[in-house]
Formats: sequence, C-alpha cells, structure tokens
Amino acid sequence: MEVGLVVVILFASFICTRSEFIVYNTSQGIVPSKLNVHLVPHSHDDVGWLKTVDQYYVGANNSIRGACVQNVLDSVIQALLADKSRKFVYVEQAFFQRWWRQQSETVHRAVKQLVSLGQLEFINGGMCMHDEATPHYIDMIDQTTLGHQFIKQEFGQTPRIGWQIDSFGHSAVQAYLLGAELGFDSLFFARIDYQDRAKRKDEKTLEVVWQGSKSLGSSSQIFTGIFPRHYDPPDGFTFELNEESLLVQDNILLFDYNVQERVNDFVAAALSQANVTRTNHIMWTMGTDFRYQYANTWFRQMDKLIHYVNKDGRVNALYSTPSIYTDAKYETNESWPVKSNDFFPYANQENAYWTGYFTSRPAFKGYVRMMSSYYLAARQLEFFKGRNSSGPHTDTLADALSIVQHHDAISGTQRQHVADDYAKRLAMGYLEAEELVASSLACLAESKANTGCGNIATKFQQCPLLNISYCPPSEVALSHGKSLVIIVYNPLGWKRDDVIRIPVISELVTVRDSRGRAIESQLLPLSNSSVGIRNYHVRAYLGKFPSDAPKYWLAFSASAPPLGFNTYVVSIGDRAGASSTRSTVYTSEVGENGTIEVGRGNLKLNYSLEKGKLTQYVNSRSLVNSFIEQSYSFYAGNDGSDRDSQASGAYIFLPNGSFPIKSEAQAPLTVLRGPVLDEVHQHINPWIYQITRVYNEKEHAEIEFTVGPIPVDDGIGKEVVTQITTAMKTNRTFYTDSNGRDFVKRIRDYRSDWDLQVNQPVAGNYYPINLGIYLEDNKMELSVLVDRSVGGSSSVDGQIELMLHRRLLHDDHRGVGEVLDEKICFHDECTGLTIKGNFFIRIDPIGEGAKWRRKVGQEIYSPFLVAFAEQDGDNWTSSHIPTFSGMDISYSLPDNVAMITLQELEDGKVLLRLAHLYEIGEDEDLSTKASVELKKLFPNKEISRVTEMSLSANQERAEMEKKRLRWKTEASKEETKVVRGGPVDPVKLTVELGPMEIRTFIINFSSIFFPHEVDS
Amino acid sequence: MEVGLVVVILFASFICTRSEFIVYNTSQGIVPSKLNVHLVPHSHDDVGWLKTVDQYYVGANNSIRGACVQNVLDSVIQALLADKSRKFVYVEQAFFQRWWRQQSETVHRAVKQLVSLGQLEFINGGMCMHDEATPHYIDMIDQTTLGHQFIKQEFGQTPRIGWQIDSFGHSAVQAYLLGAELGFDSLFFARIDYQDRAKRKDEKTLEVVWQGSKSLGSSSQIFTGIFPRHYDPPDGFTFELNEESLLVQDNILLFDYNVQERVNDFVAAALSQANVTRTNHIMWTMGTDFRYQYANTWFRQMDKLIHYVNKDGRVNALYSTPSIYTDAKYETNESWPVKSNDFFPYANQENAYWTGYFTSRPAFKGYVRMMSSYYLAARQLEFFKGRNSSGPHTDTLADALSIVQHHDAISGTQRQHVADDYAKRLAMGYLEAEELVASSLACLAESKANTGCGNIATKFQQCPLLNISYCPPSEVALSHGKSLVIIVYNPLGWKRDDVIRIPVISELVTVRDSRGRAIESQLLPLSNSSVGIRNYHVRAYLGKFPSDAPKYWLAFSASAPPLGFNTYVVSIGDRAGASSTRSTVYTSEVGENGTIEVGRGNLKLNYSLEKGKLTQYVNSRSLVNSFIEQSYSFYAGNDGSDRDSQASGAYIFLPNGSFPIKSEAQAPLTVLRGPVLDEVHQHINPWIYQITRVYNEKEHAEIEFTVGPIPVDDGIGKEVVTQITTAMKTNRTFYTDSNGRDFVKRIRDYRSDWDLQVNQPVAGNYYPINLGIYLEDNKMELSVLVDRSVGGSSSVDGQIELMLHRRLLHDDHRGVGEVLDEKICFHDECTGLTIKGNFFIRIDPIGEGAKWRRKVGQEIYSPFLVAFAEQDGDNWTSSHIPTFSGMDISYSLPDNVAMITLQELEDGKVLLRLAHLYEIGEDEDLSTKASVELKKLFPNKEISRVTEMSLSANQERAEMEKKRLRWKTEASKEETKVVRGGPVDPVKLTVELGPMEIRTFIINFSSIFFPHEVDS
Repeated sequence: MEVGLVVVILFASFICTRSEFIVYNTSQGIVPSKLNVHLVPHSHDDVGWLKTVDQYYVGANNSIRGACVQNVLDSVIQALLADKSRKFVYVEQAFFQRWWRQQSETVHRAVKQLVSLGQLEFINGGMCMHDEATPHYIDMIDQTTLGHQFIKQEFGQTPRIGWQIDSFGHSAVQAYLLGAELGFDSLFFARIDYQDRAKRKDEKTLEVVWQGSKSLGSSSQIFTGIFPRHYDPPDGFTFELNEESLLVQDNILLFDYNVQERVNDFVAAALSQANVTRTNHIMWTMGTDFRYQYANTWFRQMDKLIHYVNKDGRVNALYSTPSIYTDAKYETNESWPVKSNDFFPYANQENAYWTGYFTSRPAFKGYVRMMSSYYLAARQLEFFKGRNSSGPHTDTLADALSIVQHHDAISGTQRQHVADDYAKRLAMGYLEAEELVASSLACLAESKANTGCGNIATKFQQCPLLNISYCPPSEVALSHGKSLVIIVYNPLGWKRDDVIRIPVISELVTVRDSRGRAIESQLLPLSNSSVGIRNYHVRAYLGKFPSDAPKYWLAFSASAPPLGFNTYVVSIGDRAGASSTRSTVYTSEVGENGTIEVGRGNLKLNYSLEKGKLTQYVNSRSLVNSFIEQSYSFYAGNDGSDRDSQASGAYIFLPNGSFPIKSEAQAPLTVLRGPVLDEVHQHINPWIYQITRVYNEKEHAEIEFTVGPIPVDDGIGKEVVTQITTAMKTNRTFYTDSNGRDFVKRIRDYRSDWDLQVNQPVAGNYYPINLGIYLEDNKMELSVLVDRSVGGSSSVDGQIELMLHRRLLHDDHRGVGEVLDEKICFHDECTGLTIKGNFFIRIDPIGEGAKWRRKVGQEIYSPFLVAFAEQDGDNWTSSHIPTFSGMDISYSLPDNVAMITLQELEDGKVLLRLAHLYEIGEDEDLSTKASVELKKLFPNKEISRVTEMSLSANQERAEMEKKRLRWKTEASKEETKVVRGGPVDPVKLTVELGPMEIRTFIINFSSIFFPHEVDS
Repeated sequence: MEVGLVVVILFASFICTRSEFIVYNTSQGIVPSKLNVHLVPHSHDDVGWLKTVDQYYVGANNSIRGACVQNVLDSVIQALLADKSRKFVYVEQAFFQRWWRQQSETVHRAVKQLVSLGQLEFINGGMCMHDEATPHYIDMIDQTTLGHQFIKQEFGQTPRIGWQIDSFGHSAVQAYLLGAELGFDSLFFARIDYQDRAKRKDEKTLEVVWQGSKSLGSSSQIFTGIFPRHYDPPDGFTFELNEESLLVQDNILLFDYNVQERVNDFVAAALSQANVTRTNHIMWTMGTDFRYQYANTWFRQMDKLIHYVNKDGRVNALYSTPSIYTDAKYETNESWPVKSNDFFPYANQENAYWTGYFTSRPAFKGYVRMMSSYYLAARQLEFFKGRNSSGPHTDTLADALSIVQHHDAISGTQRQHVADDYAKRLAMGYLEAEELVASSLACLAESKANTGCGNIATKFQQCPLLNISYCPPSEVALSHGKSLVIIVYNPLGWKRDDVIRIPVISELVTVRDSRGRAIESQLLPLSNSSVGIRNYHVRAYLGKFPSDAPKYWLAFSASAPPLGFNTYVVSIGDRAGASSTRSTVYTSEVGENGTIEVGRGNLKLNYSLEKGKLTQYVNSRSLVNSFIEQSYSFYAGNDGSDRDSQASGAYIFLPNGSFPIKSEAQAPLTVLRGPVLDEVHQHINPWIYQITRVYNEKEHAEIEFTVGPIPVDDGIGKEVVTQITTAMKTNRTFYTDSNGRDFVKRIRDYRSDWDLQVNQPVAGNYYPINLGIYLEDNKMELSVLVDRSVGGSSSVDGQIELMLHRRLLHDDHRGVGEVLDEKICFHDECTGLTIKGNFFIRIDPIGEGAKWRRKVGQEIYSPFLVAFAEQDGDNWTSSHIPTFSGMDISYSLPDNVAMITLQELEDGKVLLRLAHLYEIGEDEDLSTKASVELKKLFPNKEISRVTEMSLSANQERAEMEKKRLRWKTEASKEETKVVRGGPVDPVKLTVELGPMEIRTFIINFSSIFFPHEVDS
C-alpha cells in the first residue's frame, strides 16, 4: 500500500470542457428576501438498537439491518473534502470516537480542517443521543461531558445545538440543563404528541422558546424547534444508495431528463413547510437512520437541487447546519412563544402512547442505576487514591454508562442481544471499576495514598449480586480468630447512617465498630423465596452452583462520614450479650382477625390480619395518621388483533383491561421483628413476593418486590403495577420528577398546551419516574421514591401507581421487531425474567415532604459502597486506618447541596459539580441560596485556581454566557426573580448555589493531597 | 462549489500514530512457491435488463432494483486513488462512456493515470457484454469496435481479455473471432452446462485452450477459463454495502474480533478451488451484478484479507486482474487441453436448458437484424457522401445497435419496459440514419458528392414499416405527369437482382428502369390478413389511422451494381402493354383432390389439394426431387407447477408436450401466379397465416409466416414451431451457424466433450440459428435460412424445426421476474403480439448447398435499401444520375468475399473489413484463397496507406501478432494447414483472404473521391 498522499479529485469541479460536465453552484448563502430552505445533511446513528453499537459501527450482522457507521463517516468526509460548500452535522460521539481512533494522522488533519471550516459540525455531542424519560440527570450530564470533552480536546470545539431528534418525548431537564446550561443555542427534535403537533402546525408554534425550569426561569431558556413531521427529508428527497426517490436527471443526452419537475417538487415542499413555520427560514433534515452510507448519493443530488432551485429562483436553497439555521432565526428578531414543562407523554397516534418504555426491561434499568451510582463513588475513590495512568480506571465503566443512556438502551427498546451487549459492557466496566475501588479503599485504609498505592496488601471484595442474596465474602464460615472486615463507603457529602444487610452463614455473630465496640445487629432468616432466586440465578448467570445458602441476613446500622468510610468487623459471637439478635418471627393464620402493628420507631404500619394487607400509616412524631392500602394488579397488554393492529410492546403501553391481583388466602403475613428493623413478608401470589421493611430509625417504609416470572400461558401479555392508595383528595393532580431532578406538576387527562382529547385514559396519563412521584392535598403529601426508572401515574385521586414489570407477547411495530419477553435460561430451559426492586413510601404533613424526597432520594441513588476483607487475628487495626473522609473532618455539605461529580481528570485537574437539590419554593428552609466552602472539600490541598465551566465543562461559564443568544419571547407575565450563585471569590473560594442550580468547576491544585483520618 | 483541487486522504495509509490505525500491506505480488489467490475486483453491469441502461446508469427506478452504475464508477475511482495496490477491471463501455462524458478534465487526468498504472483495466471493452447466441457476428464486431475505439482514443489501450462471464452459453465465433482475432490473450466466463462443469472440475479442465474455428485452426486459439461456480466471490466473501458476509473485524477494542476465523475461511475457500484448478494460480471474481456501488466496502475488506492472509502465509493473496492472472498462467508453461466447437446449449440443471431465449421476442430480434443491415448500408452511403461533422450520422444507430447486442437485450430476456427502451433507441438511431441515407442518396443522385451536399433538393422517403404493408410514399395516387421514383441501393459487393415489393393503390401502373424502358411487373392483391395487420399496427404504433389500404403489392425484379444503386420509376400505366400484370388467383375447394404445382422457373413446389399442404420439392435444373412437408405445432410451456417449479420462460425452454397445429379444412390454398412470382397463401389456423413465394428467377422457396396473437385463454403458454420434413437419412446430425458465420456440426442427444445424460430430449437439442440450419444425407442437403435469430433443431432425422414465436404465462426464475407475454395495445386493449417473418428453404444436391447458403445468406442479411421520391414530369433524369456504384464499374467482389464494414472514420480515414464467406472444405470452388483489389474498391481515390488492424481496429495486426501469447496444448493430432492471406503489397494493394478469414484495414487516402455513374 502506498504511503503518501494522492491528489484526489473533485467529482464536480474544475474547468468545464465537455458538454456533459456540469459545474454546480452550491455556494449559496442566505438570501434575506427569499424563503430560505436550509438543507441540513445528517445521519441518525443509534448507539445500539437492532444491532449492537459495534455491529452498527463495523457493519456486521447486516442480516438484521444493513447499517455501517464506518461507511457513513468515511464517505461523508470524502464528500465534504470534494466540495467546500457541503456541510454535515454529526451527533453520536460513541461512533465518531470509534472511527477517529482508526484514522491516520493525515485523516485527522483533514477532518480537523473540515471542522474548523464549519463543514463538519458536531451537534448534541454526547456519546449518544440519550433517552429523555428513563436516564438519571447525572448520567445525562456524564455522557454528554464525555462526548464534549473529546470534541474539545481533539477539535477545540463546543457544540451549540441540542439534537434530540428521535427520543420519545422530551424532558424539562433536557431543555434547561442538558440544553441551556450546556451553552446550547437551540434544541431540535421530531417526536411530540400528535395532537400537540397538529395544533402547533396550525398556530405556527412548532418553534418556541422553551423554559424548562421553574427555578432557573428565563436564565435557562432555549430556542426549540420541533420538526413538522419527522427527522427525515420531505417525501421524495431521500437519496440514500438504492433509495426510490426520483433522482435529478440533468444529463440531456440520457433519457428521463427531469430538472424542472424536481425543482417544482422542491418548491412545493418548501412552500408547504413555510406554511407552518414562522420567518423565511425552514430546515430540511436531509438524512435519517444510518443514512449516508455512501454520502455521495446524497450530496450529488443536493448539489443539483441547490444549483437548479436557485437558478429557478422562487426559493433559496443552501447547504446549512442547525447552527446556521439558528443564527438565521435569531437574526430575524422574531418573538417566539414560550413553552414550559415538558413534552411527556408522547403519542404518535390515538392508541399509541409511548409510555411502556418507561418500565420496559426493569432489571436492566435497575442495573444501569446501580452502575451509575457506583461510577460516581468510584470516581471519588479514584481521585482520593490518585488517578493512575496505567489503570485500572473508571473509564471503561464511564464509556459503557454513556452508551446505555442511548434512547434505545436504557429505554429498554432494543433487541435482546443488544440488551445483553449493553449489560456486558456495564459488567466489563464494573469489573475494572471494582478493581479500582478495591485498590483505592485498600490504599486509603493502608494510608498509602500519599506514598503510592503500588504495593498495597489488602484485597477487598465486593458483592454486586447482593440483590440475589449472593455475597461470597460475607458467606464465609468465621472461626475464632478470623473475622470479616466491612468497609462502608459513603459517596454523599453528608455524614450518614444506614442499615447494612449482608448474608451470613453463622447464627452467632457479633458486629463491632471501628473502635472495637460491639454494636446492635439483627439476624433475619432468608426466606425460601430469596434462597430459590439466589440458587437459580447464580447458576444461570455465573454457571456454577453456589455454596450452601446462607441462612440469615445480618443487619446493622452503619455510619460513615461525608465522602468517607468507616469500618465494621463481624466475628463469631463468643459472648452471648454481644451477639446479634435473631428476629422474632410471627406468621399470621388464615382467617385470623384484628390488626398487627409493625415498626418500633416513629413509623408504624398497621396490617389487617383478615385481609392480610396494609391498612394504616402512622407517624407518631409528625402525627400523620392515614388510611393506606397497597395492592397489585396487571394490565392485559393489547395484542394488536383489533382494528388498529396496535399491540402493547417495548415502546407502547396499550392496556386491554386491568385485573387486580388478590393476595391469596394461603399466603398470610409473616412478620420479622428485631432491634434494627421489622419486616413484613407477603407471598402475594405464586409470582409476586413482597417484603416491607420498617427501620427503627427511619420514617419511611421500604418495599422490596419480587415480581416474576409473569405467567403468559394464557396468551396474554401482562404489565404488572402496584397501587398505593390513600383517601387523599388530590384533584387529579400529581407530581413526577424530570430525570431525577425537578418535579413537574401533572394533571390527569389534561395538557397545558392543548385541549386534550382523551383516548387512552390509563396510558395517556403515565409519566416517567426516576426519583419519585408524590401527591398532596391540603393536609398531607404521599411520596413514593423508586430505585430505578419506572412508569407511574395517579389514575385515581389519592392513589399512586407504579408499573414494575412488563412481559408482552407482541411487537408494537415501532421498529424493534422483537417481542418484549425477557427470559432467563439455564440449560436451555427458559422462564420469564423475575424482577426484584425497591420503592419507598412516606406520608408527610403538607409542606414537609420535599426534605425527605430530596435527602432520601440521594441516599437511594447513592447507597453505601460496601467492601469486604478477611481479618486474621487483630492485625487490621495495626495496619489500617478504620475511618476516612475525603473532606475536612469538620465539614459537611449543606443539606440542600449534593456533590454530583468529583473526578480527577487526565491532566491532574479536578472536575467538581455541585448541585442545589431544591427547587424554588419547594421547601421553606432549603429552597434558599446555599454555599459550599471549596477549601473544606479539599483539605490538605492547595487550590490554585477555580474555573467555573459550562455544565459539560467544555468551556468557561463566563465565555458561554457571553455568547448565549437571548431570544425575544411573546411572554409578558412577570417572572419570579431567578436566584443564582454569584462569582466565586478567588480568595474565599465559597461557591453559592441558588435553587436547582448546578455549578461545574475545574479546580487546579498546587500541593499534594494527604488522606485524612476521621474520628467517628 | 469550490473550483480547484483538494488534497484527499488515504483512508488506509500514512504513518501509524495510534494503536487502532492499521497500515495494511496490500502490495503483494505473485509468490511462485505458493498458491496465489488472484483477487479480481469487478462489477458486472448489465447494459439494460430489469431497468433501462440509463436507469441503471443514473440509479433511477430503484423500486425495481437498487442499482446505479454512476456510483460504481465514482466510488471505484476514489478507492483506486486511495491505494495504488488496488485494482479494478471495467467492462461495459456503454456505461463507462456515459460516466466519462460527465467528468471534469481533472477526473479525466486522474483516471488516465490509473489506467496507465494498470490499476484500472478495461477488459472485453465492447459497449456491452454481448449475447453469444442471438447476435450476428457483424453486430458483435461493430459493438466491440465501438468500445475499443473509445478505449484506444481516450486511453491508448487495447484490451487483452475476453470477459463473457454472464452470457448464456458461448459461441465458437466468440472464441476465435471476438477473442483471438481481437488480440485477446484469454477469455473467461461462468456459464456452461452443469454436466460439463462437473466433469471439468473433476478432470481439472475448467481451463483450456479453445480453438473455435475449423478453418483458422491453431492460428486463432485462445486460453479460456471457466469459473468453478459463478462470477461472484466464494461464499462469504461478497462485500457490497449492506451485504451479510462476515466482515473482517480487526479492531481489538471492539467486540467480535475475528481475524483468524476469516483467514481460515479464506484459506479453506482457496484450497477448495485449487483442488479443481491446474497450476498454483486461482482467480476469485470479487464482484457481481452492479456491485461496488460504494467500492470502499469491498476494498476495505480485501485490504484486510490480503494483509492478514499473507501474514498467515499459507496461501498468497494479491490484488490482480485477468491480465495478470493470464500472464501468470502462461508463465507456468503448463500444457492445456484443447477445446473445439462451442458451449451450446447451456443448462444449469436437469430441467433448465437456456434455449428459449434463442427465440424470445422474435419481433425485437427481427428489428435488430433489420437495423444491423441498415447500419451497414448507411455507413457505406455516409462514406460515399463524405462524413459531415454536423450530422446527421449513423452514430446514434451505432450506439443503439451496440447496446442491443447485450446479453439481456437481443436475447429477449429483459423486462418489457426495457425492451421498449431498446426499440426506442433503435428507432431514434434509425431516424437519424434514415435522414443521412436520404441525403446521401440525394447527394449521389444529384452528383454533388464532390461539391458538397449542403444544398440538395431531392427528398427521399423510406418505408421501415413495409413489413406491415405500410409505405406512404408508394401509396400515393399517381396521376399523369406524376410518378414514383424508386432508388434501389445494393449494399453487397456484387451486382445483384432481387424482387422489390411495394404496396400501391392503383391497379394500372408501369415500372420503368433507369433508361426509361418498361419492365415486367406484377400486382398481387393484398390479403385481408395483411390489411388487418396493417391497419391495427399503424394505429397502435403511429397513433393514426392509415389512409385507405393499398389494394396491391407491386412486384418487379430490380437490379443494382455492387455498392451502388439503380433507379426505377412507377407511373400510371397509360399503355395496356406496359402495365404491370395482375396475378391470377386460384383458390382451392374444400375436398378437392389432386395436386397443384407452383413456380414457373427451375423450382416447382407441389401441393396436395386434399391435405392443403406442400408435398414435393422439384428443381428441374439440379434434378432434385424430394418429398417435403411443412407443418406447424406448438410446445406447451411448462408452468412450473411440478416438483421442480421450473417454468418455460424468457430464458428457459421447458416443453410440457408437443401439439400439432392442423391446417383447418375451411382454409384451403390460395395460389397467386404471375410473371415475377407465385404465391401460396395458407390460413393455417385463426392465428397462423403463411405465404410461400416462389420467384421465377430464384431456386428457393420463401415462406412468410404471420404467427399470433397466440391464444392463451386455456392457461397454457405456447411456443410455436414449424417443421420442414423430408425423408432424408440424417443420422441425428445437423448443422447450425455460429452467429451467422461458421457452421457447427450438431448431433442429437450427444456432446463431444462429455457423455451426455439426456433429460430434455427437445430443449436439450436446440441451438441458436442466425444464418441457417441444414441437414445432409448422401444425396441432398436441406437448408433453411432465417431472417433473424431463432432457436432450431432437428428432433427427427430428415426434419428441421424452427421456433418462431413464444408466448408464456410464467416467469422462469432466472432473474427477469416478468412473464414473457408480449402484447400490443391500442386504447388500453391489449392482445398478444403477432410476428411476421421469413425463412427460406432450399434443397441441393450434396455438396452444392453452401453456395446458396452463403450467397443468399448475404442477400437476406442485406436486402436492397429502397428509397422513394416523387417525380413531376420528366425532370428526374435531367437533374439526377440514375445509377451509381461505389466501386470501379468493372469490378465486383469475388463470390467468396463480402465487405462487412466500409466506414469513414472521424479523421477521414476509412475502416474496411473484408470477410471470406466460406469455411475450409465447405465448397469445392469457393473454400479457396480469395483476393480483393483495393484500388478497385476505391476508384478515383488515391490510397496512400493501408494498415492491417486487429478485428476491432484498435491496434496494428502485426503488433498484435507479435504480442500474442502462444499456449502449450495437450493436442497431438496433426492439424490441417491454416490458409491465411499474406501481407498486402503496398503497390499492388491486393488483399488475400483464406477461408473464414476476416481482415480489417485502416485506409488513408490522398485524393478526393468522385462518385461514378454506372451503366446498368
């Protein structure tokens, strides 16, 4: 192969010497006096869907779908180089990075040139085009940051445009946080409710200024363009290889010359779009899924269209980008309508509400959330230890997590083999991060962070499969002299107490704290259900028979400092008094009457023995005393055999009747009681098992559900929901979070933007829930928090409904082409997948719920990170420090602030993100300006410089604010004053945060960090 | 659009700086010690098939099939420029020229460089990959010449390789004439009989030296490679965009790395092919139909395969071309088996004999033959007049004719809309050529060829629709003083007499020769059948009602000098004696007994009145007296409902029973007699009408058949044949021509190359017929000549069968995807197509048939070209010359030589081809060396230089002979000495020709031509 450059060839340039060689004039810019048709060449490349991300990249598995992103990028670059008028926008950095790493320096130079000339522009710029319903906002920030960092580093560019063209509904957080706060000047997408779109086309309000945040108000507005139809070109202007669109045939020596016909088609399509659009600028999205595999096919036609349409002169056609389009819109000085809230739920037709995917693949959604939290903690520990260039790193996990935020990943709308691929990537990322975490904890425990962690001796083990009661390091048979060391790491910025539960074999154990004092602990016998799940899944997933099942959960309350750890030691209980307490067990009898009260602390739950169910919620401190019920039911998934052929499926929730699941008489209550917590076990039916936990020191109920395998022998797909029912008068109103951040008010059967025609009273009132959902009346707030993304609603006043699991038997014809019927297989025998998860219930007096939701929400997102080691004798304390905090020992973050990113960058600087947790007006005390002392966050380090950045840290905040376009709006009503933190004083280094504000900093240090021992 | 060059980018070159950027070593040459796998990148681009040639080129009509040749060429050139190791062969010049004309000078320069470096090589190099069964050899030469001229002119190259990979069987003429005589060093193709292939694989005789000509023997051998399977790559190595082949995934950072697996697959496929191939060289045809639409997809994979396979080292992989492969084979010094005859018929499985296409679309085949002849004559006239740079030209017709030689064009295996496109191209070409012919005749008649033809007054009209009895210029009502001038041009090199028939209105007309002498003429009433066909087709095709039908055919014997014309004048017969004779008409009665004799000259045909059919053939001169019958029958086309699902269709002839068509009793004989000819009209059945003509001065019978619309109301497709039956003992043996040139011996149910398993006794004995078919026994020869390509056989000793028309109701699954059910429509009412054609029968004493077949064969191919003008008074003779010859008046070509090309080239030189018409041993007198005096061919012109060229005139013959590879063969038997003409003496300028020799010359002149008047 030749090494060198070859002079290539403009296929449509240079001096015309033959009658059939035509020079196309494509250099046309905007013509203010005409209708400008902005042709925006783009390819929408799903980061996994029908094929895995790598299969899409290399073009493998084409029997499923012909798609190869490598071709897109190869051929687009060639096409752009051939004509400097041509433009292209690229979005998904997961693909771009794969391609970039394979290219030569020569290609790198050429592409950098294309980028600097504006021919190739990166928009959106995250690793993927994330989903907007099911990801957590921290994951959205992280995956965007990962992409933006790369673009900044390789090209010195900061994307200006949000491009969420395909996500199935649009969140408030996307608009203001992953939009305005990134410095984006506009946001574009295709999918909104069909009724909404019809009205917007009618009123020319497809383009608006979207103000997604109550708290940040006009300071985080973003110009938003909704496409008139979809993100593909107008009919007949799709020019992929082998496409059926009529090509412009302009060679007079060949048959079927059709230039005038095609120009007329173009003008007609342009005028039709102009008819629903304000100003004299319209955008044509010239591309769609995985197109531009041979980019020349598109550019050749667009060259001709631009040339002949402009010769015709009725409209003006130009190569453009969303940036150019945005600037052109801005230049018109038009006033735009203001849109608030969000664009959920999304229905593309009467019977097609895309609200099933809020829950689809709940195990995967849970896994992603667990990894998200782990990644946050692992980065902290990576920083404390010091980033090691040779690894292990969190980078693999970061990459995997970024990919699974894709709108066909965490959404659950991919094919099974692709879901498996995502899980594999997470698992690989986890394994590396686990190694990092273990070594960091060991390094910190051995106090070697300042001397280098190369020769640490301690090997920490962790238990990612605790949810199936599988934890080999805790299941060891402890003998006298050998004990189990448990490191409990707290990724939150506050000191924190929480109950740890680990499976143990012995029934005579003692738990000691880091000073050697025995502390209270409780043994809870493992239910048969848990043992069965454990043994089956260990065999199915690990391919081995687990050792004999542990008999007990050992529970004890642990405490850890902010960003720090504490150490507990479990040993054989040799003195009776110090041993853990075995739970008392009470099993109700069938037909028994009366009630039973559960809980030893402030919270008591009353159960009816006759009905075998929860009846009353009582908090003796807050004096809440409320009727409450909790029940299960399922929706029969529509099978698509009716007129419209629409089935309930991976995307769509289309119920065909609701069926209550009655607690069966043979399954009475079992109550376990002890000093740490009480548990109520309910075998609801053969495939639903539930444990309700009331911790003595907590004022909420934790419900662990085990749902599955959902039976489908009756040929009916089922979508299993639970209802928490009170007598509250909630007036059709409920609140759900936006990506775990802001709460958005929802009113049943109502949309603020248009007069809703209610066709699907259930599915059309479902919303995505990442943090929680709550109701309020004039006395109380009922809050439910979740451990992963689910769909939820309030279909009846006073009631909250969560969809926990779905198993369906029909594809819903939205492209995935596979039935959402998750299975687990062992030796080729498959059964439906079982889901185990938690949700958390609390009732507060009105006005007091936010504190719990925000604080416990953080705890649910960031549980203790627990690691295990074995101690032989008492040598641990001699060689290890028992407690550690990454912050100043005297310091803790304010109650209304969380540290959502602490990460050492490759250059040794630190990326820090602080998030105010409260919205304006959300809490009387905490919806106020907060301040954080940076110096306290980094004890023993000298901060030399603090630079406030945009949310994705790819540009200085001040620079970003300077460039931001400020759009004229039609809004006239007075706006509440926006509270934001002021500039950071370079001496005091105190960071202020207004409600809901997230501030992002790059911090430079001038001295070395010493880890700090903390008293506990 | 930028005007200028851009530096582009080797996607797989330059210095490696990142771990994932791989430099592939693709520069590998041949390694003599290893098995060499020659990867030959190619695209097989049908010049029309499912889509028209222009649709394929621009990529239109992709709903039928995604295919765009423009993409192939664009992307291949880019891919070749990116790596100088890469190679590509291109074949079809019709496409390449379309592309070339659209490119800039810059592209031209780059492509010329690629060609000169051998990266891009033209093989075959004709305008299309012609069919080998149904085209006439003159058309094959012309279409190849057209492509080769272009390649020579633009690139200075002469193709070395025959590449008939897709044609459905292979002709002897292809091998020796369109192979060796072009200077080709090898010929490759895929399609041969499945039994033949099996044996050849077994015996390693897929590669042979083919000696296609008895007469030219070893002087025209060609190395021939038959592919082991088809012309696509081995399974799993097809790499088109979106293809399902496993791609080489060599990025260790992505999943599914598979380099070793793919290398193993490669080696296994190579060894498997080596197992059926002699020497250590095998060829992989890396491409197939319309592939390389984005060439990068192929080259990227081949780069990797070459790189990793050679690293592996078991076999040697290289980018190659058939030329490199041929040279490598030659270098091995291996001896090859010798193959003679041809590769017809082709069957790809037991029940799939591709012998239907020999007849498919007989009207189109007839039209092509008519245009071929017209083109030959028009070029002569273009030369006589002098080529005019501003046209009209024959070039459009040349281009159309070249395209219709394609193996899915004249073969009749294209879709109907494509057949229509071909016909339209021919019609457009004809219209321009007709104008040229008219002006040339006018120019010559006005004696202005030496002074310039710019201001000619005479407007000649022509009658291309004479076959439907439609000729407006002859149908005029002649009044006293007005007469019809008829110019009769003879394109043959001999003086010639033939009967002219034109429709006239008047029944009192006189025909006068150029000296004003009344000559004998005859009026034959138009049959009702003819009138019906005329009126229907004129309306259907011309969209107008024809004027009142003429009542008569006027027939008279015309005579014209070699390459010259004569003039006849038809006027109202004012003197009884000079008027044309009305034919006597006799219609036999049903039930009549006895015989009737037809014919006034040497030939008499006897008909049985009782049976209404021919019974005896008598020639009073040669004393032949033979029983003869002629009948019709049809084969029921298999409908594919049986086990193998094989139907008879456009390609395949698969009869399901044979059914005689009995002459119906209500349709007795009608006999027309007169001084010029006798006609026997037979209404065989409602859809077969036949006229047998016996000319007084000819010794053969001409049968004009009118077949159609074939009824298919019974759900049965029908293939209509006629049988000519004698009592001859022909011992299973018959002879059919090869593309109108050599006759090849056929033996029923026998193949010379293998032990034939007879599965299809009818279809498997069908052969293509372009010139004729004959039988012989020890006394007689029965010869039948045809006016177009048809399929024929001798299924029974003494009998000749011709398939005249086919109408089928099922697709035969060979790709066209359309039923061969030709229709003609008028006002949306469609009926099956009617075919009108002629064949010619003669019986000679043994040894005397060749003279007739060759001479009359030439006359059938080149009928008189007739043009009409109107004369007012007697002014014609005063302003026009009545006769003309392009040759010296004293000269005529020898009886065994034809001038098959006389064409003025753009540079003023003349291209001349002379063809010896006889094979060695074919005729006692004429299979001898012939000589032609060039000076006599060009009277009044000074020949300054005569250069003998290769057949396609793209290189000097001497040069070609010097370069020719001479292969070692296994043949040992003595060969007959080959007779070829010697070098042309530059002074005498006499050209000698041995049997079957065709010699091609470029002639330079140094003086101006004066047309010459001839006495007649």
